Amino acid sequence: MNAWNLPHGYRYAGVGCGIRPGSDRLDLAVVLSDGLASAAGVFTQNRVAAAPVRICRERLPSDNVRGIVICSGNANACTGQRGLDDARRMAAVCAETVGCGAEQILVCSTGVIGRLLPMSEIERGILAAARTRDSTAAAFDRAAHAILTTDTRIKVSTQKLSLGEADCCLAGFAKGAAMIGPNLATMLAFVITDAPISCDDLNAMIARCAGRTFNCISVEGHTSTNDTVLFLANGRAGLRERPELKGESLARWEDAATTICADLAKAIAADAEGASHFVTISVEGLRDDAEAWRVAKAVADSALVKTAIFGGDPNWGRIVSAAGYAGVKFEEEELSLWLGDILLYHTGAPQPFDPSSASAYLKNNRDIHLRLRFSLGAGRCTFWTCDLTHDYIRLNAEYTT
Amino acid sequence: MNAWNLPHGYRYAGVGCGIRPGSDRLDLAVVLSDGLASAAGVFTQNRVAAAPVRICRERLPSDNVRGIVICSGNANACTGQRGLDDARRMAAVCAETVGCGAEQILVCSTGVIGRLLPMSEIERGILAAARTRDSTAAAFDRAAHAILTTDTRIKVSTQKLSLGEADCCLAGFAKGAAMIGPNLATMLAFVITDAPISCDDLNAMIARCAGRTFNCISVEGHTSTNDTVLFLANGRAGLRERPELKGESLARWEDAATTICADLAKAIAADAEGASHFVTISVEGLRDDAEAWRVAKAVADSALVKTAIFGGDPNWGRIVSAAGYAGVKFEEEELSLWLGDILLYHTGAPQPFDPSSASAYLKNNRDIHLRLRFSLGAGRCTFWTCDLTHDYIRLNAEYTT
Repeated sequence: MNAWNLPHGYRYAGVGCGIRPGSDRLDLAVVLSDGLASAAGVFTQNRVAAAPVRICRERLPSDNVRGIVICSGNANACTGQRGLDDARRMAAVCAETVGCGAEQILVCSTGVIGRLLPMSEIERGILAAARTRDSTAAAFDRAAHAILTTDTRIKVSTQKLSLGEADCCLAGFAKGAAMIGPNLATMLAFVITDAPISCDDLNAMIARCAGRTFNCISVEGHTSTNDTVLFLANGRAGLRERPELKGESLARWEDAATTICADLAKAIAADAEGASHFVTISVEGLRDDAEAWRVAKAVADSALVKTAIFGGDPNWGRIVSAAGYAGVKFEEEELSLWLGDILLYHTGAPQPFDPSSASAYLKNNRDIHLRLRFSLGAGRCTFWTCDLTHDYIRLNAEYTT
Repeated sequence: MNAWNLPHGYRYAGVGCGIRPGSDRLDLAVVLSDGLASAAGVFTQNRVAAAPVRICRERLPSDNVRGIVICSGNANACTGQRGLDDARRMAAVCAETVGCGAEQILVCSTGVIGRLLPMSEIERGILAAARTRDSTAAAFDRAAHAILTTDTRIKVSTQKLSLGEADCCLAGFAKGAAMIGPNLATMLAFVITDAPISCDDLNAMIARCAGRTFNCISVEGHTSTNDTVLFLANGRAGLRERPELKGESLARWEDAATTICADLAKAIAADAEGASHFVTISVEGLRDDAEAWRVAKAVADSALVKTAIFGGDPNWGRIVSAAGYAGVKFEEEELSLWLGDILLYHTGAPQPFDPSSASAYLKNNRDIHLRLRFSLGAGRCTFWTCDLTHDYIRLNAEYTT
């Protein structure tokens, strides 16, 4: 029953406790390590950070974590001191069921903002999760379901890694972000592993992994109050008596974690509400990766580019001009642009192309590739986004608080 | 026939020369001063700047300008060396009809990008403009029409100013920007006056005026390749033998110019294609005006805020969280938020309000007011934008290059 390469030494649960009034959907998850785990996190840059984000920031990085409790349907954001008390209480109730200290449990929320958590429902949910938690793929699947809001499907990715004498596993699950739904575009992502890794190494790697993956997706550029990525490493992979991973082994683990994060990030962009195209934007040849990221994000966030893709219009002028306002210095002659395999713009000059085949590329494919090549250096970035459609407007305009 | 307070010493024309194949709409305008004028400009920050923008940048500021020639329907952007040659040729042909040097004529274009100008049509148009130009309001009106692209109406504003012995007049006309149409979101704006002003003073004032007005509107944040604002001052207001305006007189002229620019900027935002609401965002109480501008722009550019307004949803969480990612440091307790007169969020805490009356405010008014008050200083900004609607998507997706 380990079809997903789940790491050793973790238990999961996903239960429904009625956070959304009148709904019986799964809305509370726990992920618990049998022993102590190293943990690290990266969080929203929004000045308005939800209570659970503030609690996690206090507690991380740490080599003393036992697990995570997550609720969906309520973000516990803009809820003041009471919200902070409630987030601490979620962790404390979960810790009691584990038999550890409250500060050893991390906490996340996603959902509507500005409402107080229904604490009696949540406490009941945590107790139910304690009764049902186990290490099976079925429990992992229920946890992955319980964190969803407007997602249409779970996002899961796992990796198995052979490190000499022992194997280790990594498992990730995520929700949202590209989600534009009723609530906000919150993204939550969790990667757990049974490899032994120090919390300092985990802390350095999570920033790099998230930078190359979760920071390279966007739907409309609205940064949530609740965005959270957490890594947990409990060292239970038969490597228990061995020292923490270093050097080549650690680099291989980071590659595997980056693959998982990229899988989850792409799954989030592909599940964007209302989207009819999944768009990969490759930018190369700038002075550094940060410049390439800025250009890619400007193109990805442009409503004019997104509506052109929705409409099947190979309107390269919108793409070139979006690159032009990214805040990166370049001359037109230093830029070339491809839509799929079709060269539209070469070293500053429009290229003759067949508009009907370019339009057919957009109309007949759900996965679209834009490539911008500069001649200024080796900086590069791959960015994922979606188009802007009538369904986006309908879904976001029709919802009423 | 001076109902619009037109300044002395200018002649105007607007003609149709067929820049858009098969169309007979007005598409070429000239504004010419009878004598030398001081001139200054501000331009798009896009790295991909159209040929006419590059020509104007070379020529300004200047105390030696005779006029402006403007074409609509073709942006002359992304057109390489040939585009630069064509823009210079437009100025040279116009200069010949005036009897001045080519470098004394400024040039602007707006329209589709990546296409070469139809120069024989444009040269014919400039000659027709030379035959018909005069100083009447009717000619000014035709010029204001000839620069339009997807605008539904002309944008014009004038002011008359009494400066002791003599009056002076200011007249402005503009197009686009909030326009999202087939072409790009190009904004062009022109303010001409018969006051005597040095080109250095004009240059300092145009940056301030544009910063408070044209830089405070946005529809989707896409900066055009062609954005241009030009000021011309020819000193023909019966003040001819008098020295240039200084001190209090100059400050009063700047106030009048700012009023004209604000009128034109608001007219642009209100005419945004597909919009059903005109939104004024007031931000106050930040450390400086630049911080207030950043917060206002983040709220104005948020697709989630725009769709909520379209849908009549008083979703204050979207507004507060947009402020949170503006890159301005603040704590939740330092922010309060009003929708019209309704207090939604006060010093970091959600306020009880009647959702149905808040929703009615959005549904029953075309003009919407959002007010964000911080407690950090005296910095303030007023910003204008519109909502995001199905018509926006339709207009921008259905157009095919």
